[in-house]
Order: sequence, then structure tokens, then C-alpha cells
Amino acid sequence: MMARFNGSSLLIDCGEGTQIAIAEHGWSFKPIDVICFTHYHADHISGFPGILLAMANSGRTEPLTLIGPKGLERVVRGLSVITPELPFDIILRELEKPLEKICVSGMELTAFRVNHRMICYGYSLEIPRKGRFNADRAKELEIPLKFWNRLQKGEIITEEGRTFTPDLVMGPDRKGLKVTYTTDTRPTESILENAKGSDLFICEGMYGEADKIDNAKGYRHMMMTEAAQLAKKAGVPELWLTHYSPSIIHPGQYEKELRKIFPGTVMGKDGMSLELKFEDEEEPKQE
Amino acid sequence: MMARFNGSSLLIDCGEGTQIAIAEHGWSFKPIDVICFTHYHADHISGFPGILLAMANSGRTEPLTLIGPKGLERVVRGLSVITPELPFDIILRELEKPLEKICVSGMELTAFRVNHRMICYGYSLEIPRKGRFNADRAKELEIPLKFWNRLQKGEIITEEGRTFTPDLVMGPDRKGLKVTYTTDTRPTESILENAKGSDLFICEGMYGEADKIDNAKGYRHMMMTEAAQLAKKAGVPELWLTHYSPSIIHPGQYEKELRKIFPGTVMGKDGMSLELKFEDEEEPKQE
Repeated sequence: MMARFNGSSLLIDCGEGTQIAIAEHGWSFKPIDVICFTHYHADHISGFPGILLAMANSGRTEPLTLIGPKGLERVVRGLSVITPELPFDIILRELEKPLEKICVSGMELTAFRVNHRMICYGYSLEIPRKGRFNADRAKELEIPLKFWNRLQKGEIITEEGRTFTPDLVMGPDRKGLKVTYTTDTRPTESILENAKGSDLFICEGMYGEADKIDNAKGYRHMMMTEAAQLAKKAGVPELWLTHYSPSIIHPGQYEKELRKIFPGTVMGKDGMSLELKFEDEEEPKQE
Repeated sequence: MMARFNGSSLLIDCGEGTQIAIAEHGWSFKPIDVICFTHYHADHISGFPGILLAMANSGRTEPLTLIGPKGLERVVRGLSVITPELPFDIILRELEKPLEKICVSGMELTAFRVNHRMICYGYSLEIPRKGRFNADRAKELEIPLKFWNRLQKGEIITEEGRTFTPDLVMGPDRKGLKVTYTTDTRPTESILENAKGSDLFICEGMYGEADKIDNAKGYRHMMMTEAAQLAKKAGVPELWLTHYSPSIIHPGQYEKELRKIFPGTVMGKDGMSLELKFEDEEEPKQE
């Protein structure tokens, strides 16, 4: 999954062919500031050397941040045998706790442990949205105009014995954007908790047939129906399924049944994309 | 490049997406007995973990032989961080000399050093063809019928003080099949020598425009025209060009000019394949 926000791109996992998918979208490799790994099975990381080279060829010189479970350094060092001499630095951030929050490129990333055969994490990506600036109140409080912009950015300002804090003039935080991505896991409480409030929930749907539940439990993967139930419980508007078993030729055959569980189910396809926007709000009239 | 002969498959290099190309051809991963690497730049090897997994999923348990320049063990160990626990053994054969001949799965493989920024090899793959068995001569020499088949297979047979050698009854070796593959190199004598006698010569054609010669020399790649000249000098019937610079959108635009140098030039495309057969010979009449 690739998220693009405010000139920065973030990638979660990069299986074989990810660089081809990005190129086909006409997207650039240069603004990829962060790559998060759910875990280190090859189908989630074997496209990583290719991405590194594509980024190198893009002229990037800014450092790249990699985030992933324990083992990150070992895996990156291993794969780097075929990508020596990159023109940018790599910053490694190994996840240690069951839940970690990281600020990256203006986005708030939450990594949460899930339940697979090896340590595996899901990720929620949030773009917060500040409250509305109350100009009337700022005037009332006789806050100088030159401070308004700094207060909107969250600064606390002290001048001539007076202190202005943002909460004086900023309304409550407005609804931002949130996307949650998880794969290669059994259903967990952590997924449910983190999926809540998401505008889009992307989840593996490994098996479609009910009799595959033993496989799902054995290999620690998720049934499509389990993903739909999670989406329903989390109260999200939309679920995209992904990571189908190679034995499934036509994932669409399960859609109808899944929509009975959760109407917002969408069978994910290669190259699918969606633009999320902040909720429209009527701007208060300026006098 | 994938070669299939007599139930065995051999792969030369595996860049990103090789497993997809093989699957799209409907070919199996299970009979891949040998993978040869020209060198370890990522665009030639980043599909390797995916191939290993696809082979593991195919149910293969027979060992896999890997052949490549010095560094093979280091590279394989590095990439193996994402493919632990394979159900088959891996046999490594590091190339040390400028020219090495290796027998693999009934094929004769020649690895020859070429000239790139890192140690790089080209490969010729030959399927020898024995001479015709001369039944009349075998009868003349009173060789018992029960030995005929063993003599055809090259055995030397001693019985009751008499020794029969294959050369008594086998004609001179007939023309076999030969394919030569080389990429990521300047033109070299080694390429010319090894391409001779090939039924198919596959060679990189990195740059099409004449003014790219300095790039070709600097990055140690080959011009399309240089590949065509090599093919002409080597006297092969057919040249496939491959490994185009990403800056070339329509390789076909160079075809006409290249055919003036070497008429058997073919602009290679993803998924191209060819079936080579032994030359037809009229079977001698059996009396």
C-alpha cells in the first residue's frame, strides 16, 4: 500500500513487482520517505531491493526511514548485498512494543502487533486536522494579528508578560483522515481497536470457502468473512480485501455473501486507488 | 532466460518479476535444477527470493544448483534472510576462472568472463548430439546385439577378452544445439568465441542512439550496433536483443538499421520463446 500526502509518500510492504505497480501508476519513487514492513516473509519484502534502486535512480538524496518488527536490521543488511552504494542514508526503526506511535512526514503512524507465524504488525495512518481558528475570539482577547498564524500552527506565545496558547483561539480538533492496513494475521482485538475510526480499512482475505478455516488457523491467516466481521464491528465505512490465496481465481465470487456481513466490502484489485478528502465544512462567514 | 530440456529447466538470472513471467507462460517451477547468475546487480537477481518460494510451493525436494561469480555464497546468504526453511538443499558453485565448463542436467554449460563494472559472466548452453550408430558395422564386427544400446550410450564393454569401444560403431558427433546468453558487458573476444556455433545468440542491446557510446563505455554496457556486429562476426543465424535502457520506449525503431549490420537481428520482448530442434537428418535405411 502506498499513501501519498503533502508531497510525501509512505509504503507499507513491498512484495515482488511493487516498483512496476508504482511506475504503472505514473507515481514517482523520489518522495518515498518511509517504508513500513508488516513482517519479513518474502512476498512482503522481495520487491524492496528494486524499490531502493528505483529510488536511487530517481535522484533521491534525502534519508529513507524503514520501520518494521525486530529483525529489521538483519533483513535490510541481508537484502543490501544486491543494492550497495545508495545515494541516500537509511534510518532504521525497529518496533519493540505491541503498540507504537510514530510521527512521520506529518502523518501519525500507529504500529500494532497482530497474530501471524512470525512477528507481524498492522498499521494505522492518520492525518490529523486541527480545529477551526476563531478570529472573533482572537479579536476579543486582543491578540495581535501577527501571532494568529503562529497560534494556528500550535505555538505558545509569550510577549510583554502575556501568554497566548492555541486553545484560546482554536476550536476542537476536527475529523482527520485514517487508513488502517493489516495482513497475514488471525483476527485480533488490536486490529479491531485500531481499525475504529478509519475511513478505509484494508485487510487480508486469504480464504473464501468456509471449509478453509483450519488452514486459516494453521497458517495464521484470515478468512474473508472474518475480515468482514472485523469491519462491521469497527464501524468503518469501507473494507478492501487483499492478499488472496493463489488458489482463488475469481475473488469476486465471494463478494455478494461478504456484503451480507458487511455492505462496505470491496474486493481489492492490483492498482486500486482512492483519494480521501477532509470532510467538507461550511466556512464561517467573515464579517 | 529459461531453458527447458529433457524435463529439466535452467534459468539464467532472475530479475524482479521472473516468477510472474514463468507463471504466465504456464511453466512449472519444480523442474528448475539450475540457476546461473551473470552478476549480482539487483536487476538480475532481485526475483531470486520469489523464485525460491515458488519452487518451495511447487513441492520440489531435489537440490537446486546455483552457479555464479565470486560472491555467490554471500549474496545467497544475504537474500535468504527472507526465505528461511526451504524444502530443498542448495548447492553453490562459484566461478573462479575466466572460462569454466560445467555439466548440468545433460547440458554442457560454459561460463565465460565478460567486461562489466563488477565481475560478470556470459553463458553458453549446449546440448550435444552423438553420431549415428552404424548397425552394419556392428554386425560386421560381430558385436552382440545386447551391447548395442550400451555402446550408443558411450560405454566401453569388455567380455571374454574382447573390448568394444563406442567409436567402433558410432559416427562422428552430429551438430547439437547451442544458445549463448550475455548481458551487462562491453563487447569482448570471449563473447565472440563463445557465440560461435550458437543457434541463438541473446545479447544485451542497452543503447540504440550512436551518441550513447560514452554511456555504454562508462557503464560498461553494449550498444545495439555492437551486439549486431558481434552476431555477424560470430556467424550465428539469429540474434535476440534484450536489456534495453529504460529511456528507450520503442526498441523496434532501431530494428531496420540493425538488420543492415546483421539481418538476423530480432528485438527481444518479454515472454518471447523459441523451440530449437536437432537438424533433420534422413535416417539410413534399415535392411
